[in-house]
Order: sequence, then structure tokens, then C-alpha cells
Amino acid sequence: MRVGVFDSGIGGLTVVKSLLENKLFEEIIYFGDTARVPYGIKDKSTIIRYAIEAVEFFKNFELDLIIVACNTVSAHALSEMREASSCPVIGVVEAGILATANALKDKNSNILILGTKATINSKAYEIGLNAEGFKNLQAKATGLFVPIVEEEIYSGEILDATMKHYFKEIQKPDAIILGCTHFPLISDALQSYFSKESILIHSGDAIVEYLEKRFEFSKKYKETKLEFFASESPEALKNISKKWLNI
Amino acid sequence: MRVGVFDSGIGGLTVVKSLLENKLFEEIIYFGDTARVPYGIKDKSTIIRYAIEAVEFFKNFELDLIIVACNTVSAHALSEMREASSCPVIGVVEAGILATANALKDKNSNILILGTKATINSKAYEIGLNAEGFKNLQAKATGLFVPIVEEEIYSGEILDATMKHYFKEIQKPDAIILGCTHFPLISDALQSYFSKESILIHSGDAIVEYLEKRFEFSKKYKETKLEFFASESPEALKNISKKWLNI
Repeated sequence: MRVGVFDSGIGGLTVVKSLLENKLFEEIIYFGDTARVPYGIKDKSTIIRYAIEAVEFFKNFELDLIIVACNTVSAHALSEMREASSCPVIGVVEAGILATANALKDKNSNILILGTKATINSKAYEIGLNAEGFKNLQAKATGLFVPIVEEEIYSGEILDATMKHYFKEIQKPDAIILGCTHFPLISDALQSYFSKESILIHSGDAIVEYLEKRFEFSKKYKETKLEFFASESPEALKNISKKWLNI
Repeated sequence: MRVGVFDSGIGGLTVVKSLLENKLFEEIIYFGDTARVPYGIKDKSTIIRYAIEAVEFFKNFELDLIIVACNTVSAHALSEMREASSCPVIGVVEAGILATANALKDKNSNILILGTKATINSKAYEIGLNAEGFKNLQAKATGLFVPIVEEEIYSGEILDATMKHYFKEIQKPDAIILGCTHFPLISDALQSYFSKESILIHSGDAIVEYLEKRFEFSKKYKETKLEFFASESPEALKNISKKWLNI
């Protein structure tokens, strides 16, 4: 199985990490649109345009599947990518909704959805969770977490002040959807702020669960071949991937 | 006189404000590359590519001058823009250096240069200020100020924590170069942190001074016609411009 993983930048590497750990693919071709990152502050029409260009890029490879690791793209452009693609396309939002539904037995559970401005504005998680019977939802655009994580700040005063700013009217949640690939890197800070008992929904783990449960992926590969492409600084992406993925 | 003002997004409106107040132009054509903003985290080669595309865009108008309102572009792509353009191109960095030299009589003055990662890495301000005889320079990439300002945060705990993070080893400066068009919006916070006596160098005022002193602009126009273009959401840009420019 050869999969293409698309992200607006480097964040999707947190999804690649889960795919590697679970040995689901023979080959992963990663494309990060580093020259135009971030997507989370952009318009639906721009996000769709860039996402379709990514599908065109992936046509250079004979892929069995495209995984959209970026929540913003998954929330806005999945159907357009499917129309443009000759192979199946799956996204982290639908996977995150399924993972949340599997993790929470009580339909009255309080779920906090975090994401970029574009992801939250799309209401994609809310629509999906409503369909699964969850009504007790809070959603908050927490876009500043993205540049904070990109400055390699994972704890401390800036993050504490930012959480206080965003969460002043948020009730303690039973589950937190980390609806942006950068957010798993501040899991500890979020659980310190709310509660260690809050369940965290991680896009990478959710995609693995989705592939195993919905698509019955069971074959495990001994090794996964990795290739990295980026619209700017592919070398920088490769260096970060070495650090994040321990390869 | 018809001028094109180029910025990576909306920040360049702080420069347009200065141009309007000083009535230097008959017509201002503003182009913000909102679909690919921000530039400050991007590579030199990407910045040059986008900047040359902006020059190509401006060829649709008969311009007398192009002003690069973005410090990142001014620091990295000015000579390439000049090569590609049939009209003169000036940037906020050269203007800021001249304004600083005019404002500070003492060559031993301590100057703090703030900017995006790309602007600071270019060392464009340092090279220019060294040539003017200033050696007592501190430079700091303060990229987080950009998304903080874009969230309309101009004071408070997040900004205080961020300043503390960036400035812990910075000595009190005699002058601060606001080397990003977003930074004038946090002038008060910066002066509260350092000193009300610190001179602030503002790109918009610097460009006006540069045009008047270096190019002997003296004619004043009763009215300035404004046109706004953007690579995404031109309507959003127009709405923000109404608020920022009081038009």
C-alpha cells in the first residue's frame, strides 16, 4: 500500500508518526505546502484551490490512498479533493469524529473542539458529532497555539496566558478534540489546564483507528519507505521529520 | 502620481495611512497577498518569487512608483523587484534606516531592531545602520507579535508574557525599529515595557520622510483615490481598510 499524506506544512508529521508506529503502509509520500502555510487563517475557496493542487501533485505517484492530515483542509475541501482524485481520499475530521464516538459511551459527555479559525468556522466536527448523538459541544478557535508551537513553546507563561484568554468561558470538558495537527504537542499543557482525566482525541491515532475499523486495515509492513516533498525548503522538512519521527 | 503599495497582507495599511495623511499621491493601488500571508516565516527564494509576481500584477497599471510596505519583502527581494519593474521600487527598510539615522544624533545610541524571522535573518537593517555609523545594535525576531496583533490583542497578559519571553536578554534601547507593519499597533505595550523615552521608528512615517527628503516630494494632493486588490477576500481587505484608515 502506498499512501500520500497531505498537510499545509509540517504539522502532518504528527499523523505520519502514528502511521509509522502502526506499520500500516509500505510507502508514505508526504507533501507539505510549506510555501503557503498556514491554511487556518485562509478562506474556503483558497483552501479548496490549494487542496486540488495537492491532488494534482499526488498524480505523479501511483497512490492507493490519500490521507489529509490537515484538519483545516479536511473540514473544507474533502469532497472537492475526492472529485479531483482517482484514488480514495480520507481526512482527519471524519476519523476524529469516529474516534470520539468510540471513546465516549455517554452521549451527554461534554466535548471541547479546538481548531484553527477556518476549522471551527466550518462546524465540520459539530455537524459530525451531532449526527453521532452528541449535543453537549463547545467549540473554540485557538489559532495562536499554531505559531506558539512553531516557536517550540510547549509550556510556560505565554501558553498559560493564551489558554486563560481562550478558555475563560469554557467548561471543563470530558474530551478535547485536538483539531489541528500542532495541538498534540501541547497535550500536557491542556490537561494541566483542564484535567488529567479529559480524554484527548489525536488526529494521528484517530486515522489509524479509522483505517483499522472502517477499512479493516490489518496487514502490517516490516518497514515503511518515506519520501518527503514540500513547496518550499524540502530539506528543512526532512530535518524536522528526523527529529519528530526519530528516523 | 500613481503609486502601487505591496504588502504580504493587511499590515501595509499602516503605511497607506501615513501616505494618506501626508497627501503625497493622487492614486494609491494597494495589493495584499492575503492568500499566501504571512511571508515572515518563509524562505528568501519563496519571498522573491512572490514579490516578482506582485511586480507583474502592478504592470496592469501605469504606475510611477512601487512602495514595498512589507519589511520582509523589502529585506529580501528589493533588487529582484527593481530588475523586474519598469518603474522605481522603494522599500520600508531603506526608509527606516534613514529615519533612524535622522532621529538619532548620537552614533552610540542603542538601537533595537524588531522584525519577523525572515527580516531579522536577512540582517538588512544591521548592514544599513552599520553603514550609517551605528554599531550598538540589538536585533530580535519577534514573529509571535504578528498573529497576536491579527487576533486584535494589543495589551494584556499574552502580550506581556511574549515580551518577557523575547526581551529577557535585551537592554533598554534608545530607539526601537518597528520592522514589521503589524508592530505599530503594539507601540504602547512596547513603550510600557521598555521606556516612554524610547524613539519608535514606524515604517509608514519613515517612507513619507524618505520620499520628502530623498526624492524631494513636495506636491500635496487634495484627494487620494484608493483601490484595493488582494489574492484572497478583497472584500475583507476593504472592510479592514475602512476601519484602519477611517475612510
